[in-house]
Amino acid sequence: MMNDASNTNTMKAEDTPELRKLYEDFEAEHLKPLWTQIDDLMPVVPNPKALPHIWKWSKLFPLAERAGELVPVGRGGERRAIGLANPGLGGRAYISPTLWAAIQYLGPRETAPEHRHAQNAFRFVVEGDGVWTVVNGDPVRMSRGDLLLTPGWHFHGHHNDTDHPMAWIDGLDIPFSYQNDVGFFEFGSDRVTDYATPRFSRGERLWSHPGLRPLSELKDTVSSPISAYRWEHTDRALAEQLLLEDEGQPATVAQGHAAVRYINPTTGGDVMPTIRAEFHRLRAGTATLPRREVGSSVFQVFEGRGEVVLNKQTTKLEKGDLFVIPSWVEWTLQAQTQFDLFRFSDAPIMERLNFARIQVERGGQ
Amino acid sequence: MMNDASNTNTMKAEDTPELRKLYEDFEAEHLKPLWTQIDDLMPVVPNPKALPHIWKWSKLFPLAERAGELVPVGRGGERRAIGLANPGLGGRAYISPTLWAAIQYLGPRETAPEHRHAQNAFRFVVEGDGVWTVVNGDPVRMSRGDLLLTPGWHFHGHHNDTDHPMAWIDGLDIPFSYQNDVGFFEFGSDRVTDYATPRFSRGERLWSHPGLRPLSELKDTVSSPISAYRWEHTDRALAEQLLLEDEGQPATVAQGHAAVRYINPTTGGDVMPTIRAEFHRLRAGTATLPRREVGSSVFQVFEGRGEVVLNKQTTKLEKGDLFVIPSWVEWTLQAQTQFDLFRFSDAPIMERLNFARIQVERGGQ
Amino acid sequence: MMNDASNTNTMKAEDTPELRKLYEDFEAEHLKPLWTQIDDLMPVVPNPKALPHIWKWSKLFPLAERAGELVPVGRGGERRAIGLANPGLGGRAYISPTLWAAIQYLGPRETAPEHRHAQNAFRFVVEGDGVWTVVNGDPVRMSRGDLLLTPGWHFHGHHNDTDHPMAWIDGLDIPFSYQNDVGFFEFGSDRVTDYATPRFSRGERLWSHPGLRPLSELKDTVSSPISAYRWEHTDRALAEQLLLEDEGQPATVAQGHAAVRYINPTTGGDVMPTIRAEFHRLRAGTATLPRREVGSSVFQVFEGRGEVVLNKQTTKLEKGDLFVIPSWVEWTLQAQTQFDLFRFSDAPIMERLNFARIQVERGGQ
Amino acid sequence: MMNDASNTNTMKAEDTPELRKLYEDFEAEHLKPLWTQIDDLMPVVPNPKALPHIWKWSKLFPLAERAGELVPVGRGGERRAIGLANPGLGGRAYISPTLWAAIQYLGPRETAPEHRHAQNAFRFVVEGDGVWTVVNGDPVRMSRGDLLLTPGWHFHGHHNDTDHPMAWIDGLDIPFSYQNDVGFFEFGSDRVTDYATPRFSRGERLWSHPGLRPLSELKDTVSSPISAYRWEHTDRALAEQLLLEDEGQPATVAQGHAAVRYINPTTGGDVMPTIRAEFHRLRAGTATLPRREVGSSVFQVFEGRGEVVLNKQTTKLEKGDLFVIPSWVEWTLQAQTQFDLFRFSDAPIMERLNFARIQVERGGQ
Repeated sequence: MMNDASNTNTMKAEDTPELRKLYEDFEAEHLKPLWTQIDDLMPVVPNPKALPHIWKWSKLFPLAERAGELVPVGRGGERRAIGLANPGLGGRAYISPTLWAAIQYLGPRETAPEHRHAQNAFRFVVEGDGVWTVVNGDPVRMSRGDLLLTPGWHFHGHHNDTDHPMAWIDGLDIPFSYQNDVGFFEFGSDRVTDYATPRFSRGERLWSHPGLRPLSELKDTVSSPISAYRWEHTDRALAEQLLLEDEGQPATVAQGHAAVRYINPTTGGDVMPTIRAEFHRLRAGTATLPRREVGSSVFQVFEGRGEVVLNKQTTKLEKGDLFVIPSWVEWTLQAQTQFDLFRFSDAPIMERLNFARIQVERGGQ
Repeated sequence: MMNDASNTNTMKAEDTPELRKLYEDFEAEHLKPLWTQIDDLMPVVPNPKALPHIWKWSKLFPLAERAGELVPVGRGGERRAIGLANPGLGGRAYISPTLWAAIQYLGPRETAPEHRHAQNAFRFVVEGDGVWTVVNGDPVRMSRGDLLLTPGWHFHGHHNDTDHPMAWIDGLDIPFSYQNDVGFFEFGSDRVTDYATPRFSRGERLWSHPGLRPLSELKDTVSSPISAYRWEHTDRALAEQLLLEDEGQPATVAQGHAAVRYINPTTGGDVMPTIRAEFHRLRAGTATLPRREVGSSVFQVFEGRGEVVLNKQTTKLEKGDLFVIPSWVEWTLQAQTQFDLFRFSDAPIMERLNFARIQVERGGQ
Repeated sequence: MMNDASNTNTMKAEDTPELRKLYEDFEAEHLKPLWTQIDDLMPVVPNPKALPHIWKWSKLFPLAERAGELVPVGRGGERRAIGLANPGLGGRAYISPTLWAAIQYLGPRETAPEHRHAQNAFRFVVEGDGVWTVVNGDPVRMSRGDLLLTPGWHFHGHHNDTDHPMAWIDGLDIPFSYQNDVGFFEFGSDRVTDYATPRFSRGERLWSHPGLRPLSELKDTVSSPISAYRWEHTDRALAEQLLLEDEGQPATVAQGHAAVRYINPTTGGDVMPTIRAEFHRLRAGTATLPRREVGSSVFQVFEGRGEVVLNKQTTKLEKGDLFVIPSWVEWTLQAQTQFDLFRFSDAPIMERLNFARIQVERGGQ
Repeated sequence: MMNDASNTNTMKAEDTPELRKLYEDFEAEHLKPLWTQIDDLMPVVPNPKALPHIWKWSKLFPLAERAGELVPVGRGGERRAIGLANPGLGGRAYISPTLWAAIQYLGPRETAPEHRHAQNAFRFVVEGDGVWTVVNGDPVRMSRGDLLLTPGWHFHGHHNDTDHPMAWIDGLDIPFSYQNDVGFFEFGSDRVTDYATPRFSRGERLWSHPGLRPLSELKDTVSSPISAYRWEHTDRALAEQLLLEDEGQPATVAQGHAAVRYINPTTGGDVMPTIRAEFHRLRAGTATLPRREVGSSVFQVFEGRGEVVLNKQTTKLEKGDLFVIPSWVEWTLQAQTQFDLFRFSDAPIMERLNFARIQVERGGQ
């Protein structure tokens, strides 16, 4: 990777018995020389082991259904969640070094018991309804297009109030938490604490009024207090951006490309300290500029058809398909129909630690 | 005011010819001793010259109507706005040392020309409709219960699109700006730049979606980009708080007292750097605890009947009535019916400069 | 002031009996029309009543000495401080609408009793030594060139430990606090609580180590915990800037112009929420570019000779001379010798409330 | 780890052919069930693979000397740095999942060539002198007790200006950067750009004045602009804390325990976005309370003798010894003589991402 060292004074030690002995003695003392490993450890640009990869919803969902038949849900395993395991990350259910993504499946009348953990989590619903997630005692309806938050150390469980199963995706920072040894976990109730099925959660009723903050809630919170971001708002915000663009007004992030970021209303910043969530809508025929970013992103197609180009490889995408873009991998989205995609990423980690960088190919388009 | 100095070593200079000569010489050199004026300059608690005062809408509105008949609106005077002049502040149209409040009146088909100024401004509509305020080219409908912002250095004009007059209140930081010499002013178009009358302004279409931020607008702004805070949202937020209270959930700021603060969605903070805006709803029969705050506030009754107690004096209030609470004056609100009040204040000044203090009488109630 | 309104639709109401009656009725209801006063209230650029003015140390100091003979120091008047009264501000000891500046004089063995107030204060020593200011119980030596802080609500008193008198300048935000009714005041001990005369205060011993923060003090503070900024550090910092400039390195704020801002080490920001303090050193022969700023500044010459040009009027300056620059008044400094000046201003108010603006004439020099 | 699940409805799927087939199909689609791995992935408390470990300076330094004889320094390997490899992290030169620590050795008259990288780095000197590190062109002397910064993307090289070798420790966030794919790397000059050997660097001359900020440098920086934190300041700050404690004043972090944090003077916060640096001094006979923290720390003994208790195991420590405390491992320090220790950690990562937690055993002492 670091291949341009053209000077003569290179660090090539002669392979002598003394050197070998030195390296053995290093080993015995738990030491490793930098000079033999710097090319791998400190690449010229990020060189992720994670690979760009696409999971087809048409494969995922039937597997989740089969799990629903064979695996009970309950205490211990906690969730019937099937993690997307990046083929480059050798076995762990890591979709990237920082992020976890899974399809979770809950059968008719099932309950996933309550627990809490330091890891931050959300759910996004690509289809179906009928499940309520109960977050710190507040029952939150889950419906198509909604983003639901369960920030770190909030108790949460799920229950299916219907006679049909439901599936959705979970996003968490499990790999980051695991790798950096920051996780705590605690069991809660074996059932959910409230089986009510209100249309709107208390979090929404308190917080989902544009530009208004309850006077009883003036202290900023680490994560968003909005328990559910409803599809009707997301859809309307995107529709308005495209209408404004039609009227010649600045509104979209690029021509034909509407997008919103989900935010914590107490700060205007990301919904959780480690996870960014966004929704993107491309008009039919639109393509994004080729782009690289530090950090990893996961997209799920919500509606429409299109393609993603990852490291020059093009793949067709349909509703429910998920793909991961590892750090510094070049990507482009192309819309064949109106193309709606949910996105989440580890960008808050990169920005808060000042590692964020973006490179956009302007020449290309 | 500073009356407890009980030690003997007081600063009483003997009244001698030498002292008089010294004071004359001070005068000649533009000097003033502290010791003769400290009691006034540095009181034990704030001792405002501004007085608590109430203006009745039943008096204000007819006077505004008469102004509508006698005074044309146009360039030079700029606005048919009649300022509320605190009786303690001797002549200036200052409702407090920091704030300006006025009733503005626009006749059928009239236009108030465009200008901009460093002073921050808002409008609140206690009754009527039919006027659009055009802020940096964006026409914003004004309807009952709406809060409309024109932050510092935004061009703005108003036009009445109907055959009936309309009145509303303006709030600004004119006294603060004047006193501290921070004002700039620039004329714009003699007409408004856009006579369109859309139901929703571009600012709202881009920003009034709860918890969603346009990806094209990631830079935080000094003032809120939400051009209009609509009554339907405010009303619903307050109603939900009271319903949640009925359900035994934390939501209201005190028993029977729902309240929201209008915020800048890019930061979660106040709508403008110098002005806070809130809306309060008291259930019938509710009273607030006696309270003193550093800084001054203005309330306008939006709906319902009640009373305000200012420095132990009780006054009945009806729709449209305005009152000012100067710094550190004790106040209580009492609701006879459901009682809705709009409030604005200079609290952001006090908080940003670390002068804010609040004292609540807990024993009283 | 607002003189360019060239359209025909001006707000000139005909002077009729009805209009006069309307204005009378306004008066009775404590109302003032905007249209008759907007030119004064909302000028095109700041139009301060405060005037640029210079006070000569050669006049100030002898007057302070005479006060020392005629006026005892003690409880009630609290301080033998003689305020600089801006000639444009009609009688109050306001050097500007926001700032107070005074010469304070303490005779041999005298004590100024302890008190505290919401107002923020500092002292700067242009000559002399021998007084200790005791801030929240911590005795702080006052010597030539030192800046001493007594932030809002810190108890403080002064005592002269020598047989010679000492004078210095006090800077406070009294006018701002008075105007906006934010002041609180409390008496403390009639004597100072600690008559020790250590070379370094506890605040310095804890905090005056560059780039180091005590682990016991990790909570950020509103005002700087550094009780005294010593001349030796200021002098060296300025000297190094000029040496770096000589070496061709970026260091000075402009060619020949070294400057430092005194900061709160817990935030890197200004020492107090309302007052900025800086020290400027100009090489002989250097002049600053003509400049206007929103907000007011006070300078005191510490050493050397030069001139200030205020609104095109040039005045010679010597050691100890003080001058005020009201908002938006153009100013230039010219150094005849190496020219050292202490500066304080209300810039934190302007910046925190987003009223700050600066205009520099680049063409001129 | 997650061993308290006492309910009956556990997630034990029967081991059937269908289940095996399902797991095979998961594998084929790059999926992993959560329920089989949650105990490992989401432990009740952090369960680091990294082990507490101690490296003796008496072993390290001779190995570095031998490397100095056998391995040239130069382009490619870049540095004669020998990384401390945590025995629990299987081979990589990671002292913890986030941090890199190495001993670097530079022979007489040698130069380590310039480069820059996104990774943040510092050096701390436990003994010796004679090397200058050149950071973005600014030569910085390295002497015993000094902390030197080379924040992310700053060019830096080192040269030994003497006829004796020198060794020091390097600290970086290489493991974190590697794991999260955020690294960029660029070669600079094969020599250092400036072989001057000034006593003080330009960074120090501009910034190392307590409480003073150059007016030419008002923009906050991501990392500290102080290039070198000198021992004389650190030593004096610690000595003053203990003297203040002797005087009965609050100053130390606990009885007998003085400590400072190195900070970025533009913000008052940590020196770099991912690395915290502190210096601790314990009086002879003092012990710290048993303590656990999220995140990992590395200590190096600077002077004196004592012990560390890591997970109940006590080890004697002498000058130069290094040890790592992985996340949530309980630790205590005990001083036999006055005991000086340098510490660095990943605490800024934990705090910025809201994973920080601390648990102190108060009962124990």
